[in-house]
Amino acid sequence: MPKDELKAGYKLIGTRPNRPDGLDKVTGRARYGADFSVPNMLWAAVVRSPHAHAKILKIDASKALALPGVKAVVTRADLPTGLSGEDLNLQDNTLAGDVALYDGHAVAAVAATSALIAQDAARLIEVEYEVLPHVIDVDDAMRMDAPVVQEGAADHTVPEGSPPNVARCLDFGHGDVEAGFAEADLVMENTYRTEATHQGYIEPHACVGQLGEDGKGEMWVCTQGHWYIRRMSAAVLGIEAAQLRVTPSEIGGGFGGKTTIFSEPIALALSRKAGGRPVKLVMSRAEVLRATGPTASASMDVKIGMKKDGTMTAASAVFRMQGGAFVGMSPVGEALSCAFACYNIPAIHHEGYEVLANRPKAAAYRAPGSPMAAFAVESLVDEMCRALGLDPIEVRLKNGAREGTKASYGPKYKQIGLVETLEAARAHPNYQVKLGPNQGRGVASGFWFNHGGETSVSVALGEDGTVTVSIGTPDIGGLRASVGLMTAETYGIPYEDVRVNVVETGALGVNEPTHGSRATFANGKALVEAANQTIKEMCKRAAKKWGIEPEAVEWADGAARPAGDNAGKFPPMTIGEIAAGMGASGGPIAGHHEVTMGGAGASFGTHVVDVEVDPETGRTTILRYLVVQDAGRAIHPAYVEGQYQGGAAQGIGWALNEEYVYGKDGRLQNPVFLDYRVPVASDLPMIDTVIVEVPNPGHPYGVRGVGETGITPPLPAVANAVAAATGARIRHLPLSPPKVLAAMKASRDG
Amino acid sequence: MPKDELKAGYKLIGTRPNRPDGLDKVTGRARYGADFSVPNMLWAAVVRSPHAHAKILKIDASKALALPGVKAVVTRADLPTGLSGEDLNLQDNTLAGDVALYDGHAVAAVAATSALIAQDAARLIEVEYEVLPHVIDVDDAMRMDAPVVQEGAADHTVPEGSPPNVARCLDFGHGDVEAGFAEADLVMENTYRTEATHQGYIEPHACVGQLGEDGKGEMWVCTQGHWYIRRMSAAVLGIEAAQLRVTPSEIGGGFGGKTTIFSEPIALALSRKAGGRPVKLVMSRAEVLRATGPTASASMDVKIGMKKDGTMTAASAVFRMQGGAFVGMSPVGEALSCAFACYNIPAIHHEGYEVLANRPKAAAYRAPGSPMAAFAVESLVDEMCRALGLDPIEVRLKNGAREGTKASYGPKYKQIGLVETLEAARAHPNYQVKLGPNQGRGVASGFWFNHGGETSVSVALGEDGTVTVSIGTPDIGGLRASVGLMTAETYGIPYEDVRVNVVETGALGVNEPTHGSRATFANGKALVEAANQTIKEMCKRAAKKWGIEPEAVEWADGAARPAGDNAGKFPPMTIGEIAAGMGASGGPIAGHHEVTMGGAGASFGTHVVDVEVDPETGRTTILRYLVVQDAGRAIHPAYVEGQYQGGAAQGIGWALNEEYVYGKDGRLQNPVFLDYRVPVASDLPMIDTVIVEVPNPGHPYGVRGVGETGITPPLPAVANAVAAATGARIRHLPLSPPKVLAAMKASRDG
Repeated sequence: MPKDELKAGYKLIGTRPNRPDGLDKVTGRARYGADFSVPNMLWAAVVRSPHAHAKILKIDASKALALPGVKAVVTRADLPTGLSGEDLNLQDNTLAGDVALYDGHAVAAVAATSALIAQDAARLIEVEYEVLPHVIDVDDAMRMDAPVVQEGAADHTVPEGSPPNVARCLDFGHGDVEAGFAEADLVMENTYRTEATHQGYIEPHACVGQLGEDGKGEMWVCTQGHWYIRRMSAAVLGIEAAQLRVTPSEIGGGFGGKTTIFSEPIALALSRKAGGRPVKLVMSRAEVLRATGPTASASMDVKIGMKKDGTMTAASAVFRMQGGAFVGMSPVGEALSCAFACYNIPAIHHEGYEVLANRPKAAAYRAPGSPMAAFAVESLVDEMCRALGLDPIEVRLKNGAREGTKASYGPKYKQIGLVETLEAARAHPNYQVKLGPNQGRGVASGFWFNHGGETSVSVALGEDGTVTVSIGTPDIGGLRASVGLMTAETYGIPYEDVRVNVVETGALGVNEPTHGSRATFANGKALVEAANQTIKEMCKRAAKKWGIEPEAVEWADGAARPAGDNAGKFPPMTIGEIAAGMGASGGPIAGHHEVTMGGAGASFGTHVVDVEVDPETGRTTILRYLVVQDAGRAIHPAYVEGQYQGGAAQGIGWALNEEYVYGKDGRLQNPVFLDYRVPVASDLPMIDTVIVEVPNPGHPYGVRGVGETGITPPLPAVANAVAAATGARIRHLPLSPPKVLAAMKASRDG
Repeated sequence: MPKDELKAGYKLIGTRPNRPDGLDKVTGRARYGADFSVPNMLWAAVVRSPHAHAKILKIDASKALALPGVKAVVTRADLPTGLSGEDLNLQDNTLAGDVALYDGHAVAAVAATSALIAQDAARLIEVEYEVLPHVIDVDDAMRMDAPVVQEGAADHTVPEGSPPNVARCLDFGHGDVEAGFAEADLVMENTYRTEATHQGYIEPHACVGQLGEDGKGEMWVCTQGHWYIRRMSAAVLGIEAAQLRVTPSEIGGGFGGKTTIFSEPIALALSRKAGGRPVKLVMSRAEVLRATGPTASASMDVKIGMKKDGTMTAASAVFRMQGGAFVGMSPVGEALSCAFACYNIPAIHHEGYEVLANRPKAAAYRAPGSPMAAFAVESLVDEMCRALGLDPIEVRLKNGAREGTKASYGPKYKQIGLVETLEAARAHPNYQVKLGPNQGRGVASGFWFNHGGETSVSVALGEDGTVTVSIGTPDIGGLRASVGLMTAETYGIPYEDVRVNVVETGALGVNEPTHGSRATFANGKALVEAANQTIKEMCKRAAKKWGIEPEAVEWADGAARPAGDNAGKFPPMTIGEIAAGMGASGGPIAGHHEVTMGGAGASFGTHVVDVEVDPETGRTTILRYLVVQDAGRAIHPAYVEGQYQGGAAQGIGWALNEEYVYGKDGRLQNPVFLDYRVPVASDLPMIDTVIVEVPNPGHPYGVRGVGETGITPPLPAVANAVAAATGARIRHLPLSPPKVLAAMKASRDG
């Protein structure tokens, strides 16, 4: 029988073998979204609104259709009517209905025999618009007299008489906040702002879609979640989900931005109209930036009460966040829930507003909402520590959430590792380095819930005793390696004897995407269940052969062994021997597990950053950067470190440079990577990491998600360091050189 | 809970909806083996032995490697050593070792940037041979002084002093044969011969193989069984089976010939040597005929004793069959077991010899061995009926196997339908048509065991209540349609709400190929088990919601319904409603079944054919052709009829024209379809079919396999009809015009 409890002293977990996709990726052999081609394929191009807000009066495709090589044009008229709720939002975002709601909103699309013909044809499609007034900024959008983005979008939480773009209101908390503030020695309140940023994944969205006249379709697509692609595309197109078979490609980054659909149904609709010919649709970078799912811009008021010794007595937050032109995509709920999640504060009040604006519909972005919240709260904590002359780590240790703390968002924490990350940060050499002139150190902590979610995993034995694992969540950060390690560990076989396959929607039960830092956690937990089914079955087969009871067989080191009174009576029967005979002993051996997974352990991290700010240009250089984060158990430490470093890099970009810049006309001004500036290798030092391991009791190997928390502390950590280096506190990201220069000047002058 | 017993009165089973792959196939959209291409792909060409038997002294690839565009050459030296048994045979057949064993045996292969360069390079590879004596004919190969094909190939069944090419001997039977013959009024004995034929599938073998330096591989291949491709290729290449992921393409026919490997490991070996670049290998028709797996040629002595009233008293058979240059591939065992399977004969003796010859390694071909056996036995029965003036159907009815008959090969028959096919044939209008001059009618029955075998099936609910079924056996004759019908019937949902997917080896437990007439039988039976798991789970979810016991919920017409005391208390909860909420009610819903399937019902058929033979040319025209066969239950009658018609067409080709013609040099003389003559549409009338339904008690819907039996009766039926038309009995197929003309002349002269 399988071991009841998996114990420490692992043979493979914690080692660092090459990832199975590694060689393919470094040799260029890995097939990404745009690498897939099929015979008879057409190419798509999309016509997009040049206006932030405009009525679509007329679409004339006759010139485009007359161009040789053009096979189909689709507009909203080619999609079914009668959808509602989220399905209607998805359809509206896929192809605009009567109104284009943002600069870049898709209005029509064309399929032709080459990409160039498709692009020429797209330019020949004539769209007549009536331009409407628009609103971009979140605070502007909160005004009573703001241009209305969508009539009737507000849900039941929005009181009568609210500003017209408020779509949802939140209000929750605990304790007596006013009494808490009254108890404090220092109460500070400030407003913090962040701008919309994009996930900036290297790989633009790309797919090949094929949909026959018989309603059967295929899609090869770069995505974080192919079941979401299937469900959403089927809904938008009015077909049965089961009839659409979605195969994920390798993925060049997603960070939450590839958990939903953008152009995928367009490829399918074009294919359906072009007699079922497959259609390839690859977005340009400008299309990605203009018309996929960046995160929200935020305007946040935070107030904290603190005693002289650093004890927090109360806190409140009012967050206003837009999420684009569609309701439901602002991460304001998550942001509020994360805001004070690192702290044990007796009284907290949260208030939130989801606000519509004429911007692309937001999508998830790595710990959605948490980085903005952390920027506001962790900046204010830093300001208060400075005001009270307290060490920022000591203050966090004093108030930090621990096992048993009631989290600010409701539940009671189980085993968590915030305190351990703070202690490890304090003990790290980076924290002792003496700083020079124009240099400053910033500290911040961060939090993410982590998620389990809908998970289906199968495992099957090959006839030679090697093992395939079928998972349904694309591998972004080394998932196949970690699941492979857990599989080999569970069976007690070599890592090389396992292959983990990301399979298509036609081959497994439903899976949520690779999001919520769930992939290694949820797949690993389900894998162990499925593998244990097969171990049980193998013990049964061995028992039958030996003529003993299945309960008298135990599994260890890749073999069934007679146990108890029978120990040593028969030689071990290896997985290879059992597999070779499985056809004759009852049939193929496979295990399966489907569940909505619980038990994801909350994740905490603490970052320490040293910066130097050039007093002449305002340019900030990251001198050293330390990520300390609790992994629960690092299955493959190198890929855990990679997540830490990647989260930090993205957070630094968000803190220093990245932002969506809109003109007065409501058009995005910087839709290319030359102008939308993500950090490149030369912008960053090697990022130091410390993996803290406080095992998650909800996982057989102690895993907790590690993907998202790392992007949360950098925003405030960098801002705190810049404040320390310059004496200027900037409460509006990004800390771009002109802004820093101006703040330094104001600070000197003020 | 699921219904305990599935009852007749089906809503969908027995209907004839379009096959899910139909539109793709008629529009040319379906992707067959050669239709798959990937970026950076190379093309392979294979160097083949021009000699039937030759030592390979030297292979010099230097000129080929010097040709621009050539990326790799492989020979046997690139494959691992140390294999044994069947694995060694597979490796020897993939690339010859020291000796080339037949004309067309692969000796080396090259991969280049285009197909033309690869072909040019193949011609530049210089192979030095020492030609050895060879043997082709099965009776020649049985001689003591025949050239030895493989030393030491004989197994333990072969007595000392046997001819050197005899690899295996069989001897079994029951009853006192000599006493039986003594009891008979008429004892006849004759020798019958058939020539090797090829399955003649439209689509040549084709694959794209990729194998990295890290031992991870992918293969897209036209095959009947991708797990066999995986297991065999992994063994030949010395890699772990799990590391090779094999995806089947659509398949343009297989008939048993695509259940094993031929060139697939060559593509992988070339890829491995070419730095992991994918390699496409597509066989020409000549390569297919020379170097894949035709069936055996046979030489068969049959003796039967019969009373004047037609009662059979005893029978014996001595079969000699070659299976190419490798041991284990002759279907002599199956042939003997099938020989008298239609009859209840008190005494039978079977004797068999597997004989090696310098021919390509045989593969399975539709009911392997049974057509040859039927030719011998059913020809002799016909000769005896004529000699005794008895009606051939009456004699078969008198002696025919029924439920409870002990089969000639051992077991006792359960419910079977031979008698029903004979009665239906007798009652059919075709049997009453008056014949004219030079016309004759032939009757014959046939048998095939049918097979269940290793089967893994999964079924999963989509979020909209539509259903995907994952099967691991390629769809050749409408499998997806029949499994779709059984799925929809089991759930009580529309056929359109189901999609059946043939999934790759990384996504499911092991599956045997689509062979043994098993696909609809075994997948259907496993599907019902898997679907019932999900129905049970859905009833549980509904019960939980309603707050009643799961046992108090029943499933009907696509919905859970409160039953018994609770009937009508709650409205039905549809599959769509349950699926929409499954994430929240516990997780994804999926069912799985893995088993080595038993219960395949034996299959019988009776054919009646009318021919006209041109007395001047000897050419035989098929006037009308009737197939009557027991389907158990015809899930999709149109595709059952298609199997009947296809089997008859192939059998007619085998009877009249098809044969491997070798020159004295041991080279195949007719390796193209102009010279190897399969029947084309204009050669055949519309073939009439009658589906008899004697449900198979071993299947929830009564299914028995229908794929193979149909090729068994045509050989003797046509020969019997030609004998009736001409008065000339020909005991050596094919009945090609010159042979018929000569026999007619001999008969007239004789």
